[in-house]
Amino acid sequence: MTTGATTDERRARAVLSRAIEPGDEHAGRWLRHYGPTDFVTHLLRTPDGMDARASHSSGTPGGEPLPGSGDLGGDPFPGTGGKRVASWRLRATAADPDRDLDTVHRLGGRFVVPGDTEWPRQLDDLGDTRPIGLWVRGPADLRTWALRSVALVGARACTPYGAHTAADLATGLARHGWVVVSGAAYGIDGAAHRGALAAGGATVAVLACGVDTPYPRGHDQLIRRIAEQGLVVGELPPDSHPTPSRFILRNRVIAALTRGTVVIEAQHRSGSLVTARAAARLGRHTMGVPGPVTSTLSAGVHELLRGEATLVTDADEIVELIGDMGQLAPTRRGPVLPRDLLAPAAKQVLEAVPAPGPTPTTVIARRAGTTPDDTLARLYELHSLGFVERRGEGWQLTNTATPGSNARRGGT
Amino acid sequence: MTTGATTDERRARAVLSRAIEPGDEHAGRWLRHYGPTDFVTHLLRTPDGMDARASHSSGTPGGEPLPGSGDLGGDPFPGTGGKRVASWRLRATAADPDRDLDTVHRLGGRFVVPGDTEWPRQLDDLGDTRPIGLWVRGPADLRTWALRSVALVGARACTPYGAHTAADLATGLARHGWVVVSGAAYGIDGAAHRGALAAGGATVAVLACGVDTPYPRGHDQLIRRIAEQGLVVGELPPDSHPTPSRFILRNRVIAALTRGTVVIEAQHRSGSLVTARAAARLGRHTMGVPGPVTSTLSAGVHELLRGEATLVTDADEIVELIGDMGQLAPTRRGPVLPRDLLAPAAKQVLEAVPAPGPTPTTVIARRAGTTPDDTLARLYELHSLGFVERRGEGWQLTNTATPGSNARRGGT
Repeated sequence: MTTGATTDERRARAVLSRAIEPGDEHAGRWLRHYGPTDFVTHLLRTPDGMDARASHSSGTPGGEPLPGSGDLGGDPFPGTGGKRVASWRLRATAADPDRDLDTVHRLGGRFVVPGDTEWPRQLDDLGDTRPIGLWVRGPADLRTWALRSVALVGARACTPYGAHTAADLATGLARHGWVVVSGAAYGIDGAAHRGALAAGGATVAVLACGVDTPYPRGHDQLIRRIAEQGLVVGELPPDSHPTPSRFILRNRVIAALTRGTVVIEAQHRSGSLVTARAAARLGRHTMGVPGPVTSTLSAGVHELLRGEATLVTDADEIVELIGDMGQLAPTRRGPVLPRDLLAPAAKQVLEAVPAPGPTPTTVIARRAGTTPDDTLARLYELHSLGFVERRGEGWQLTNTATPGSNARRGGT
Repeated sequence: MTTGATTDERRARAVLSRAIEPGDEHAGRWLRHYGPTDFVTHLLRTPDGMDARASHSSGTPGGEPLPGSGDLGGDPFPGTGGKRVASWRLRATAADPDRDLDTVHRLGGRFVVPGDTEWPRQLDDLGDTRPIGLWVRGPADLRTWALRSVALVGARACTPYGAHTAADLATGLARHGWVVVSGAAYGIDGAAHRGALAAGGATVAVLACGVDTPYPRGHDQLIRRIAEQGLVVGELPPDSHPTPSRFILRNRVIAALTRGTVVIEAQHRSGSLVTARAAARLGRHTMGVPGPVTSTLSAGVHELLRGEATLVTDADEIVELIGDMGQLAPTRRGPVLPRDLLAPAAKQVLEAVPAPGPTPTTVIARRAGTTPDDTLARLYELHSLGFVERRGEGWQLTNTATPGSNARRGGT
């Protein structure tokens, strides 16, 4: 299902995914220096087993000679604190990558790593804090979905106004064919996911825990539904629990994955503001939804709007802002891939989209002989690739995809 | 009471104030060309009475020779439509400047014109649409008050949220020693004036009608109260009624008079947006108070905030923005006038401000032997001039005004 990285690389990254906390920049530098398999080899060799062969690493990542590095002998991680390395070693030694990969496979998931065709390359903008890999559940292709995605984030303890607005924006974005990304938390996140699902749209939940152990528990059903109709994604290996720092670091993935981040209700110093500012630093669009000045739950958003963020009041304004995607916006110029290079499942759905007028997902699913959830996953991929577009509740071929290629298809 | 312009000039401007609609750019050009007395002379001479002496005016204002102006003979207004000039003539002929000046004097008011010490020179930014003069009621000095003023404007049919916010901002601005300017309309305007009055603050109502014939009627009491504790101002001579175009043109005076304009609730295409955009064009600060995106009464403000305006949520943020007034902000650097040059009434109030701690207006009034309203007018003038500052509900000498000069006063 995942193609690109070698099996060894994927296994090594699965070990590292368990050994290293999200966003660890030190580990990121060594990963860049050694590559995943050598990094793991060095970690699994006990300090006692160090030998002269490790001398090729006597320098800091990046090639600067380390002051006094001659004294470090065969230490493969010079300049990185021994306690930190010891913790990596301990967790790497205990890791069982095959079991983790198997756990996620049995849930219909996969471990997507850099080099895979499904790897969302915009995550590379995170530099040395780029995720080691992403554990993914759901029928869609993460890379293509992320190309047309926008993050809706906000307070857990939101007001009815905030929940209403989040659901409303998500529905509007889904109707425009945009993928709604959020963190599956209570409050704004949940309302955003539900709004997208209710509109028969695409949504991605980025978790701060294992994708097999959804958090919060009260969103069990919701997260399961997202794994069926959308994607559930996380950096942490199976059975990992969220911690405050994992929540904060999860936000950088949401920011980097999407074209822009919209904050709907946030108090001063809230995690949603962290996401928004990360988005701004990464050159993504940062947007905020205003509210009454009498509401402390809008105070953080207003703070943002007085700085880097753009005020938005509906889905049209969001799409107007993030829609200008340069070469990431293939729709305007027609398909970016020849039809023959499409995956068979996507081709099958594309051939089930009738030429005239918009057609509901369920009708296309029936014609394609597959499930509505799978059809929806393919339709959003085809949308990102410029073959189809969403019109209200239905889907139709894009203008450029219609003539010729459509006629040549030879009947339904 | 008003000093600067000659009696002839003031009478001439009183005639023009009746003859010409606010914001008439054609008239403004001729006024600049002839000056007020000659302009009136030319208007009052019947077309039949034209003679060769008028030949000095055979050109457009600004000096460009008019194409074919040789044919126009003695027309004193070449290039301006005859119908327009006829209307000016008709109304100038019917004008009774002495009666108008007398009407306003009997209300304790005056007609402030360019050249007067009370003329707010920032109105000159309006160029040829500068008011011909301003009819003013109230105890304060318009020029000094306007130096530290901010406009709060918004919808007539506002929501309780809008009214609450307007009153709240006005109270906060009053507490900071800022003068609240608005249009005395129902809704936001009224709430803003009331908020300032309730905080014992300074407020200016700019009317689109005569200052003797307040509009709307339902704000009779409010406008009378403003004329006692603040200032009521208008371009139109006594007994003039408002019209839609007069409302729109009144807005440019509000925008030009103040350091910045804050819009609190406005629908798309509302008059408040006209004021805000006029403020932006004049280089004044343009601000907007956000509200729920579900409220059509906030939609116009949000439109503004997506463009030229800065989002503000409380009085502190407004003051922070407009407080940096360059040479118009004398407070930071102490008094701009030697104490000896103050008007006797202002000096009397200044001497009644005790050295230690803030003192309520009523106490200062008692010590100065004058009314609280008059004291407040003087205190805001002294504030603009840098002698005193407002602290909470009271007033105190500025740091720079205290030492020496205070000791030299020789006891209370």
